[in-house]
Amino acid sequence: MTHELTGKNLINGRWQSAAVGSFSGVNPTTGDALSPTFAEATADEVNAALTGAQQAVLAVRELEPRWPAKLLEAIAAQIEALGDELLVRGEQETALPRPRLTGERARTCSQLRMFAEIVRDGSWVEAVIDTADPNRQPLPRPDIRRMFRARGPVAVFGASNFPFAFGTCGGDTASALAAGNPVIVKGHSSHPGTSELFAVAVAAALNECKLPAGLFALLQGTRHELSRQLVEHPLTQAVGFTGSQRAGRALFDIAASRPSPIPVYAEMGSVNPVVILPSAVRDRTAEIAKDLAASLLLGCGQFCTKPGVIFVFGDNDRQLSNAIAAHVNASPAATMLNHSLRDSFVQRTTAIAKVPGVNQLVEGKSVQHAMMTPALLETTAETFKNEPRLQEEAFGPGGLLVHCQTADEAVACLNSLAGNLTGTLQAGPNEDHATVAKLLHILESRVGRLIVNGYPTGVEVGRAIVHGGPYPATTDAASTSVGSAAIRRFVRLIAYQNTPQNLLPPALQDANPLGIMRLVNGQWTNRAIV
Amino acid sequence: MTHELTGKNLINGRWQSAAVGSFSGVNPTTGDALSPTFAEATADEVNAALTGAQQAVLAVRELEPRWPAKLLEAIAAQIEALGDELLVRGEQETALPRPRLTGERARTCSQLRMFAEIVRDGSWVEAVIDTADPNRQPLPRPDIRRMFRARGPVAVFGASNFPFAFGTCGGDTASALAAGNPVIVKGHSSHPGTSELFAVAVAAALNECKLPAGLFALLQGTRHELSRQLVEHPLTQAVGFTGSQRAGRALFDIAASRPSPIPVYAEMGSVNPVVILPSAVRDRTAEIAKDLAASLLLGCGQFCTKPGVIFVFGDNDRQLSNAIAAHVNASPAATMLNHSLRDSFVQRTTAIAKVPGVNQLVEGKSVQHAMMTPALLETTAETFKNEPRLQEEAFGPGGLLVHCQTADEAVACLNSLAGNLTGTLQAGPNEDHATVAKLLHILESRVGRLIVNGYPTGVEVGRAIVHGGPYPATTDAASTSVGSAAIRRFVRLIAYQNTPQNLLPPALQDANPLGIMRLVNGQWTNRAIV
Repeated sequence: MTHELTGKNLINGRWQSAAVGSFSGVNPTTGDALSPTFAEATADEVNAALTGAQQAVLAVRELEPRWPAKLLEAIAAQIEALGDELLVRGEQETALPRPRLTGERARTCSQLRMFAEIVRDGSWVEAVIDTADPNRQPLPRPDIRRMFRARGPVAVFGASNFPFAFGTCGGDTASALAAGNPVIVKGHSSHPGTSELFAVAVAAALNECKLPAGLFALLQGTRHELSRQLVEHPLTQAVGFTGSQRAGRALFDIAASRPSPIPVYAEMGSVNPVVILPSAVRDRTAEIAKDLAASLLLGCGQFCTKPGVIFVFGDNDRQLSNAIAAHVNASPAATMLNHSLRDSFVQRTTAIAKVPGVNQLVEGKSVQHAMMTPALLETTAETFKNEPRLQEEAFGPGGLLVHCQTADEAVACLNSLAGNLTGTLQAGPNEDHATVAKLLHILESRVGRLIVNGYPTGVEVGRAIVHGGPYPATTDAASTSVGSAAIRRFVRLIAYQNTPQNLLPPALQDANPLGIMRLVNGQWTNRAIV
Repeated sequence: MTHELTGKNLINGRWQSAAVGSFSGVNPTTGDALSPTFAEATADEVNAALTGAQQAVLAVRELEPRWPAKLLEAIAAQIEALGDELLVRGEQETALPRPRLTGERARTCSQLRMFAEIVRDGSWVEAVIDTADPNRQPLPRPDIRRMFRARGPVAVFGASNFPFAFGTCGGDTASALAAGNPVIVKGHSSHPGTSELFAVAVAAALNECKLPAGLFALLQGTRHELSRQLVEHPLTQAVGFTGSQRAGRALFDIAASRPSPIPVYAEMGSVNPVVILPSAVRDRTAEIAKDLAASLLLGCGQFCTKPGVIFVFGDNDRQLSNAIAAHVNASPAATMLNHSLRDSFVQRTTAIAKVPGVNQLVEGKSVQHAMMTPALLETTAETFKNEPRLQEEAFGPGGLLVHCQTADEAVACLNSLAGNLTGTLQAGPNEDHATVAKLLHILESRVGRLIVNGYPTGVEVGRAIVHGGPYPATTDAASTSVGSAAIRRFVRLIAYQNTPQNLLPPALQDANPLGIMRLVNGQWTNRAIV
């Protein structure tokens, strides 16, 4: 199948646009505008999408509760059915190489299917039942049953750096749909054609599953005002976001200022500190230099989990930093996702280089349109801990080495860190246990995922993963935007007291028609209550 | 034991005050000030409390992870050891009768012991383990393990209406301590002596358990500025609140505006709609009138779950409303918690009575100091759905009956409702199923707890309870402030990747030394990993 891009918005199953086309995708390699032009969604279209979503909320209430499973699987199949068209357009709009996009498509589809499995299993609703005890003294105990339920329309703001896995059909959309919520995607303006193709897949899947078209909408645009209208709309019940700290915080502030505030789950990146202890520096210099440089430059440094600040110490730290610098120096120029990200990265590294006490080991150079060579900077622990600017993420191919003379210096640096998605420790087997434990404890208090003798890039999609962390890595330190627990963000909690069987949701009925695991009077069981 | 009230703040185990005494508890029955005077906590004292709390965070990291269990049990025992002193002071400061306070003390202690049990069981951390798979293609799967951990210092703002169960040692404090967090209580200015006695119990329990004194602080005061300082302090990590919508929203706004925002779990009350269907009105007039009036006037109407708006319909609605009015009329004057709540209630009922289309069935009358007789108002569905003011809680002894001519009118009224803690349906066995289901569906979308043929007052403390609901009932529709799930509010989520056994928290170690239930490679088990 091939799809002629419309440049329109998908609302209630129809491609429409009130405005005329006004922005385009741009090929980051050449700087050329890609056709077609895309229409900026209007406030009326925001309202139409949310109104349709609310109608869908009412309609799906009547369905068998596991309806999202089939939908998620159908979306995955429809994405695969897009074939090379998706990869070609993705490559044109993002400059991400074909093998990377092929892998990301596989990840996107397996993520959708993982959530389908979670829905089919059904236990994610966390059904808890305390049956009545008419003989309890001084008062009878009523029958009470609780579960998580869908929350309502969710606004999703995808990322530019994972146009598939964190995009229109990415983790936020998959987990919000899995919980039974309609999703309104604000397509990232850096890859509008890619977003449209994904929306085509969702529309086809909804149609195939005979589900309400209002369950999904795609609104395209570049205006901040569009984002504001979407978050401010009274029917919007939650927001998922992946991107910059500035944009994430702006959405958070809008949502918190609503007459009726809603949660914003924003993943806003971080510097992902790595600590390399003396024995690791000494015993594995070459290996660490190679692997760390690879992690640093993976995807042109455009990973939320890029190891952006690396603390090295011990006597051999100079050998390690030189070895890392050699790898960085040998890396060719690469094209970033767009011109503006490249310019921001140049600005950030230039600003860091100007901080007194910072030395440029490898200077990143802008090449054509959105292309640049990687950069590496270094400084001392003393400078790092006194310069909050060095803690700000530099999104792109490069990082900052921080030389520590002693473990205490590393402790002081880590203590100065704000929240991060990840923290990594590289340690040899004979390292002093107390030092390792101390550094781990500090890292642990500041990150969502702790890694020992590994690298932070490459986020597993599974049951145990946490892609989250304390602010400013995210706006909610108790959640994850990757993995099965991501579904928990888009729910609300409700209890039913003394409610007759035929009026209870199936998940809470005595007969347990869904066969799910439930906590019944304190015992986990998937049996019926008899 | 007897405790001479100091009128000071408890910080790091010491009773201290920078300021001189400046406010007093007031006996609501007489209007007399109670001795001693209490000192307003200062900004420096807020800082001292948080600094001590942060030191406690570091100290408890080294302890056996179930340390909060013993503490919670010791607090319960110390509260009981306060004996009549607590009841006497409670009665003086709140005018709540002795049997009520005796019951509330029992509830408070059993709540503390319930959380102790949850801590001992240990499974609340929701440990999820995906072990490594070195043979996975295309990349090996790393070992990843996640769990909930303590979040950090929690600020607790207790309620005036449950001075024990939602007070200094109430559900917020119990659940925050259970998760391993230090707690800073801002004592309610309506019962400062009661707060001090509870703080005495906690201090004794901490001492008995040889735990850091910084785990608990009590700050007394009446100034908004104190609340602001506590919520704004950079070391504060979460807030628990029970009280009015205005105060809860103010704290929410402060927390959301911080450089590093923190969650506020505010339970702000609601009108708790009750719908009484025609067959129930007809068949159980006398019974419903009696029980509903009792629920309405329980604790002088000062329950968050008071059934404040009652929708009646059918041909017999006049008989029911007259019967309810008769009960309300026959109820004696009662003393509210304080003078200012009484005045607010009078203001609210007067304002409601002035709305065109509202009729006063029973007029509430102010008696001495904080005393008044109960009130009952009535209106039509038409008036209700067009008057948002009628949806605002009137905290005190009284309610509003809304006469509906048809089920459609009731549907329209329910559709106009904002979030509520509870929603109740009274229906006979032969009621039309479709009508019942439709009304339940609407209620369900607007409440945290749905009750059929019961009354909303009386909140079970158990595993299945939800004391929460959509805004403005609370600021977080996915949580509860009562019951075992309340612990989830005060945690953060963290994953450990490839972390050696001796550096993992016990909950995630292969040997499962705590013997907790864990999800290991997709299977729930309390066994060790071998």
